[in-house]
Parts: sequence; C-alpha cells; structure tokens
Amino acid sequence: MDKSVVLDPTVQNRISELIKPIAEDLLSGAAEIALRAITVFQSVLANSENDLPQLAQRKAALTYTATTLIDVQPAMAPLFHLGNDVLIAIEPATSLEELADRCEGALTKFEKMLCASAATIADIAYDLIDPGELIFAYSFSSTVVSCLLNARARGRFFRVVCTEARPSMEGRKLASRLTSGGIEVIHTFDNAMGLVLGNCSAAFMGCDCIARPGVVNKVGSWMLAVACRELGVPLYALSGTEKFITDERMFEFERHERPGIEVWDNAPKGVAILNQQFDLVPFNLLSGLVTEKGILKESDIEPYLSNFPVHKALKMAPAEVS
Amino acid sequence: MDKSVVLDPTVQNRISELIKPIAEDLLSGAAEIALRAITVFQSVLANSENDLPQLAQRKAALTYTATTLIDVQPAMAPLFHLGNDVLIAIEPATSLEELADRCEGALTKFEKMLCASAATIADIAYDLIDPGELIFAYSFSSTVVSCLLNARARGRFFRVVCTEARPSMEGRKLASRLTSGGIEVIHTFDNAMGLVLGNCSAAFMGCDCIARPGVVNKVGSWMLAVACRELGVPLYALSGTEKFITDERMFEFERHERPGIEVWDNAPKGVAILNQQFDLVPFNLLSGLVTEKGILKESDIEPYLSNFPVHKALKMAPAEVS
Repeated sequence: MDKSVVLDPTVQNRISELIKPIAEDLLSGAAEIALRAITVFQSVLANSENDLPQLAQRKAALTYTATTLIDVQPAMAPLFHLGNDVLIAIEPATSLEELADRCEGALTKFEKMLCASAATIADIAYDLIDPGELIFAYSFSSTVVSCLLNARARGRFFRVVCTEARPSMEGRKLASRLTSGGIEVIHTFDNAMGLVLGNCSAAFMGCDCIARPGVVNKVGSWMLAVACRELGVPLYALSGTEKFITDERMFEFERHERPGIEVWDNAPKGVAILNQQFDLVPFNLLSGLVTEKGILKESDIEPYLSNFPVHKALKMAPAEVS
Repeated sequence: MDKSVVLDPTVQNRISELIKPIAEDLLSGAAEIALRAITVFQSVLANSENDLPQLAQRKAALTYTATTLIDVQPAMAPLFHLGNDVLIAIEPATSLEELADRCEGALTKFEKMLCASAATIADIAYDLIDPGELIFAYSFSSTVVSCLLNARARGRFFRVVCTEARPSMEGRKLASRLTSGGIEVIHTFDNAMGLVLGNCSAAFMGCDCIARPGVVNKVGSWMLAVACRELGVPLYALSGTEKFITDERMFEFERHERPGIEVWDNAPKGVAILNQQFDLVPFNLLSGLVTEKGILKESDIEPYLSNFPVHKALKMAPAEVS
C-alpha cells in the first residue's frame, strides 16, 4: 500500500461506525464475529464506489478496515486472518474492477472455509457426545453451539450444563440458543462449576485464538480446565484452524480489558475493578483441540502456527519503509 | 422436654418472624449470624414473660427457636452449637427464674467464646499476611474481615483481592467493609480468580461447618481451593472450633438450595436453574484451618468432631420417647 495515501477522516469515521457493533459485542463467539466482519468489508467496498475513485484510496480503506477490526477485538484470530487474506488478495490489484473481484473472492473463500470447518468439526464432536449424558459448555461459541445443535438434530439425546460467564453473561445466550434447538439445559453461576462438572461426561469450549502457549478464550476457561482435570472430565476446545496465530500476536488478548463499570457500576472509593475478558489455557490442561483437520494434540500444532504469510500492514513490528 | 407441650401457633409465628431476617440473610458469615441468633433467643425469653406462664411452655419456645434457627440455615454450625448449648443448659431448670438465668448464662458464654476466638484467630492470621503482599479473600466471613481489619489496624500494609461470590454478591459487601477499614481492594468476578490468584501470597476463606469430610463454605470455595493448589498459593480456612459438627449433620448443607430466580429471573422455558449455596472443600486442598486453638491440619481435627453432647431435640435420628 502506498503510505502517502491518507484516508479522509469522514471515510475513517464511516468505517469505524460499521465496525462499532463488533467492537461492542461481548456475547458472540469469534467465528460468528468473523462472519459479521465479512459483511463490513462488503459494505466498505460498496460504499467506496461512490466516493473513493482512486485505487490507492480503496486499498487504504480496506487496510483501515482490517487494522481497525483487529484492533477492536485483538484476541479474535479469525478477524486477523480475514483481514490478512483480504489485504494479501488485493495487494496486486491494478484496477478498481480487479480490486473488487479479488476482495470479494477472498471474502467468499473465507466464509466458505468457516462454514466447511464448522460442519466437519460438528461431525467429529458428534462422537464425543455420549448418548444420554450431560455435557458442559462454557461461554458462547458459535462452533460449540453448531456442534450441539447438529448432534441433537441427528437424533442424539443429551443435556447441557452451562454457567453465566460473568460479567457479560453470554452463558445465558448459550442456554437460550440451545433450548430453542430442543436441548434440555441446566444453568448455574460460574463458581458452581465444581458442583456440576463431576456429573458431566465431557466439557466443550470455543476459543478466540491459539498459539504455542495454548488456547485463549473467555476468562474462566482456565478455571474450567483446572476443575475438569481435577474431576477427570475430558475438556475439548472446538475451533477451526483459522484460530491459529503467531506467538507474538497471542498476548494481544491481555490488552482486552473492559471498563470496570461492567462488573460493578457503583463500587465504593478505594475499590479498583479488574475486568479482563480472556485467559489462557495451556495445552496440557486440554484433552484435545477439535478442528476441521481432526482432534489435535499439542505435538500436532506446530505446522499450523506460522505457515501463513502476514501482510506488511498487519505485522506486529513497525513496517519497513518501502 | 415434655413432648405433650404443644406450642401455641401464635407463639410459633412470633418466633418464626424473629428468625425470618436470619433465614433470608445471604450476605453474612456464620459467626456474624450466630451473634444475631443470640439476640433472637434473648427476645424469645423476654416475650415469654408475658404470655408463657408455665416452665414447660418456655422450654418449648426455646426448643422451637433452636430447631427453627438450625432449619433455616442448616449449613451454619454455630447456630447448631448455640441452640444445643441453650437447650442443654435449660434442661435441668425447675423454675422460671432458673430457666432465665441458665439461658442467659449459655448465651453470654457463647458470645464471649465467639469474640475470644475471633481475637485469637486474628492474632494467628496476622503472621500469615506478608507485608506489602496481595491477599485473596473469598465470599463474606466476619472472621476473615476481622482478621484483615485487625492486621491493618496493627499497621500492616497489604492489599486484598476479592471476587463477587455470585449470585448473592457478598464479595461486594466484603470489598466495601475492607475499603472502609483503610484496606486497598481489587475486585473482579469469580471466574477471573485464575488471573489474580497467581499474584497473591495467600488466600483466606471463612467456613460454615467442618466435619471429617472437610470444610463447607459458600459455593465456589472448591474452585478456589483447586486453583490455589494449581498456582501454589496457600489457602487457609479461618474458623473458630464452634464450626465443628458431627459427620451425619455435615451434608445438611446440600439441602440449602435457593430459588433459581435469584440466578436468572426470566430464564426461557426448558432451562432449569441450579442455585446451590455451599460446597465442600476436602482437607487435602487446604494449607490449614486457622482456629483459636492454632493452625490445625486434618490429623488434628478428630478430637473436635464429637467431643460435645447433643441435646435430644437436636439429634438427627428420631428422638426416643422418654
């Protein structure tokens, strides 16, 4: 991208407005948010036909979209890969038409990949759901939801226990979604995990990103993992390989601290509120990572960690002046 | 007690009304509730001077008070011991005056014992609070609060991390109480325990009752204990020996399920809510039980478990007809 192209602040604001609902979304899983980010790229492309007549401007708008999406949800690996795929695809475009084709092509490919992954993961997870048993599910993950609904639709009968996932309570969204799909749900609060996990035959969680140190997911996943190991309950992270990122990007999840007011809106003076969104589950606490490539163990992940090119606009180190 | 004495329903209702605030109290620790139960016995005794002219009636009123208190908070051992001490004390009384003296004597002795225990425990706990360190405290325990405030008042500087303790949020009461006492508090939600515990030099919890299987406390204590062991943080239960009960009474805490509406007040159809109040922490997950007799280990507890007489009205098996 030509670094001399400065995007008009009005265009930047318009793009930021499109991204705002994604920035504020605390209830959706990473794969679900990636699907919505695809429509953001499509809108940016459509809008640019009116007021961004130059190729460099349009490239700048898409680059701004990619970097802003990653910035608002730094733990969600699929947003990184989606943005990265789009920027790499449009890089060589020499005409407005080619740019649009290449962008649409990358978006469609990513969406197809997400859907195909979800279907394969659901097939693998089906065999992890024992008939008549209780399954624990944590937080909200569209991958986990689609696996459970798929198993129910295929006639498997089981019940699901889930907890609130404070402070944003996406466990309630999970409970509602599952019960609408005909699955009986038992719901309790997060610190009661220890009382219910012992009755479960397996526990499922989604994830936001994966690198060598482990799996990043909604805070509380580490507690779940430690409790599962203590009680001998197998814990699976369900995730497409689009969640793999490079190690240096992994700890971006620590930036994801939310306002304390979401935890306690009238805390007395002298009480500091900590509202972290994610934590890290090391591989040794997981029974397996259920991906579209099969159930992976720690020793299988190496090839997925850095076998992708990273567009220069998305590199963590300052980009070289070209 | 003469089993033929039937207490007037009006008197029963009046006693139940006095006990109601204790039944509904989800925020106070067991020792704090026992202090309030002492005033209930005092009120019952004072009221009986007007409308219960016979000795047997007054004994029946105090027996009804003891059994109802235990019934509304079945996990709280000090209520059992308080009621037991009162009933054993009044048993031999042969006059109204002797009854009143014996009852007041038992109540005063129990209150003095609670206060003396709390002071000794605070002295022992002082040495467990390293200067400048972070201490984790869970749920609300008046014993833990008095230890922390005592240490601060003696000039020790430290900070406390606590979590909400869903669903009744007594962690907020803890945070408020500590910050009023000049202690800097960091507050987060329960499932974020794993993110903060690793920075703590020790973790403190109160308890509701203790028997051979372990320590019963607010649900979430088991998760805390497992996380502490994983992270190498010593966990102490702070408790007077008035929390010891017989094994067969221990599992009464499982009866203590609260309405689901307290967890989620408009849960969709098909979602069953589980709202247990307590869980059990086995001794092997604790670094020690800090009592007025010193820091006890599992091997020290045997003599405390059944070295007390139990009044026949409070025996778990049906009482023999005398």
